[in-house]
Amino acid sequence: MTFPVTLKHIRAAAERIGPYAHRTPVLTCAGLDNLAGGRLFFKCENFQKAGAFKFRGACNAVLSMPEEEAVKGVATHSSGNHAAALALAARLRGIPAYIVMPHTAPGAKKAAVAGYGGIITFSKPTQESRRSTLESVVEQTGAIYIPSYNDPRIVAGQGTAAAELVEDVPDLDLVIAPVGGGGLLSGTAVAVSELSPTTGIIGAEPVNADDAYRSLKEGRIVPSDDPRTIADGLLMSLSQLTFGIIQERVERIVTVSEEAIVSAMRHVWERMKIIIEPSAAVAVAAVLGDELDVAGKRLGVILSGGNVDLERLPF
Amino acid sequence: MTFPVTLKHIRAAAERIGPYAHRTPVLTCAGLDNLAGGRLFFKCENFQKAGAFKFRGACNAVLSMPEEEAVKGVATHSSGNHAAALALAARLRGIPAYIVMPHTAPGAKKAAVAGYGGIITFSKPTQESRRSTLESVVEQTGAIYIPSYNDPRIVAGQGTAAAELVEDVPDLDLVIAPVGGGGLLSGTAVAVSELSPTTGIIGAEPVNADDAYRSLKEGRIVPSDDPRTIADGLLMSLSQLTFGIIQERVERIVTVSEEAIVSAMRHVWERMKIIIEPSAAVAVAAVLGDELDVAGKRLGVILSGGNVDLERLPF
Repeated sequence: MTFPVTLKHIRAAAERIGPYAHRTPVLTCAGLDNLAGGRLFFKCENFQKAGAFKFRGACNAVLSMPEEEAVKGVATHSSGNHAAALALAARLRGIPAYIVMPHTAPGAKKAAVAGYGGIITFSKPTQESRRSTLESVVEQTGAIYIPSYNDPRIVAGQGTAAAELVEDVPDLDLVIAPVGGGGLLSGTAVAVSELSPTTGIIGAEPVNADDAYRSLKEGRIVPSDDPRTIADGLLMSLSQLTFGIIQERVERIVTVSEEAIVSAMRHVWERMKIIIEPSAAVAVAAVLGDELDVAGKRLGVILSGGNVDLERLPF
Repeated sequence: MTFPVTLKHIRAAAERIGPYAHRTPVLTCAGLDNLAGGRLFFKCENFQKAGAFKFRGACNAVLSMPEEEAVKGVATHSSGNHAAALALAARLRGIPAYIVMPHTAPGAKKAAVAGYGGIITFSKPTQESRRSTLESVVEQTGAIYIPSYNDPRIVAGQGTAAAELVEDVPDLDLVIAPVGGGGLLSGTAVAVSELSPTTGIIGAEPVNADDAYRSLKEGRIVPSDDPRTIADGLLMSLSQLTFGIIQERVERIVTVSEEAIVSAMRHVWERMKIIIEPSAAVAVAAVLGDELDVAGKRLGVILSGGNVDLERLPF
């Protein structure tokens, strides 16, 4: 089977976004190592531009566009991090970004999009309303739709984080990343399987939005139906593109409870003194839980983002 | 005038604590640079062992003790970071730490002290009760009292943070540190004035606990009387030791309001995705406020710690 995203695409993305994206640090924490029983290497995408790994994919997509396509701008629907990331990437290229957001999105995320110069159109918080609002925005503006994960340029961009991780930390036994729509996990899977073939790849998912877990189990895409989880970056379901890569290259999906997500988030805040969002805490929860045996292992953990609404913390 | 703490002491402290303390990173943030109008270099002591710069001084003091003194352990009274730091330093040397804490101290700080093996005795939240409780603990145990700032070994240890900062970031126009009892600021002043003589040294203090500001103005120690501020690490007043150094080497003290402290803390959390405590935010507030002209300057900002009680956040 051949893949629409290869290491070559990830390397090209890395070169393209290099001048704009942060090469984020890899942090360690003795306290969390003790708690997990293994050695953890945290790839800090919470320190990425716009506060999440999403900037990598958005930047790669925006910079990949030919000038005649780019000139009318880009558009997307997103409740959060992809929206801010695309707005910032578009601003760097000097083109408009039209962002459809559900009016229920966290205030901090709305402010971030506006702060990066994104032009916001609010929709109802349903997939149907988001899609139809986006369609009319695209029709009116001529902007090009940049999806949040179902796009090889996005997947390749997201894969650059894990590529940096395995370059900085050799001999990892496992790399773990959260999975929502699967852009990060599939990009991670391509990068890690090519650059560090002995390293296993694990996805982490809220049990309340476990479409990737069920999809892998059933061997076909089983979308989530109106999932509810505090990990608001992981509500989307896999696409054909991301499912194909994940099915081939990801060892397994570990699911975690809402309580475990909040507890993991709290551990990271208190012990590492860094802010991660609930979606990032999903991967930490998988590492701290009982389901995955990490004793004595070296684990790369992708902390996907750090955008939280300080008015609505779960503690 | 000669000083009881010199660069030689700071260098000796750096060597002594080197195997135990983190060399903390210096982070930058384009968003905060824009807000301040200058270039900011944040020395991240929130990432230090036990979550604050206090570990440097405590570790230096504990490791400086001759074996016959050390064997019965160390004791102190502290509402927070010095307590945890001393407990951890004592554990590293394998000696007991007797910690007197006001029963009103934040739960996270009590848990930290206990987690590092400190033996806690609770007192009333008054200076009088803290001192008398400590006296009886020392009498019963034979432990040596390690004060939180009025001790040359502590000041020399705290100075190692700024020494690293000016080594990592040359040509700073200013270095700014919060001031409570003055251990951090006086250590910073010795290190910076010796290692980077053209760099100015600024203290930052809550206007609600402005004894250092008033002391410098009046040329004598003017202690605070029952100060109330969210910056709970800055409630103590200067000692003769710290006042002497600060008077000679610190350019000025900038005072900031409670609102400015909370706002600065929030800016750092939201933009840098790192957790700092209110006392650390005091220095950031001074940089973001109008009183200090930072336009076009290169500023070192010492983020003193990151220990917050997530149950009692000000947002």
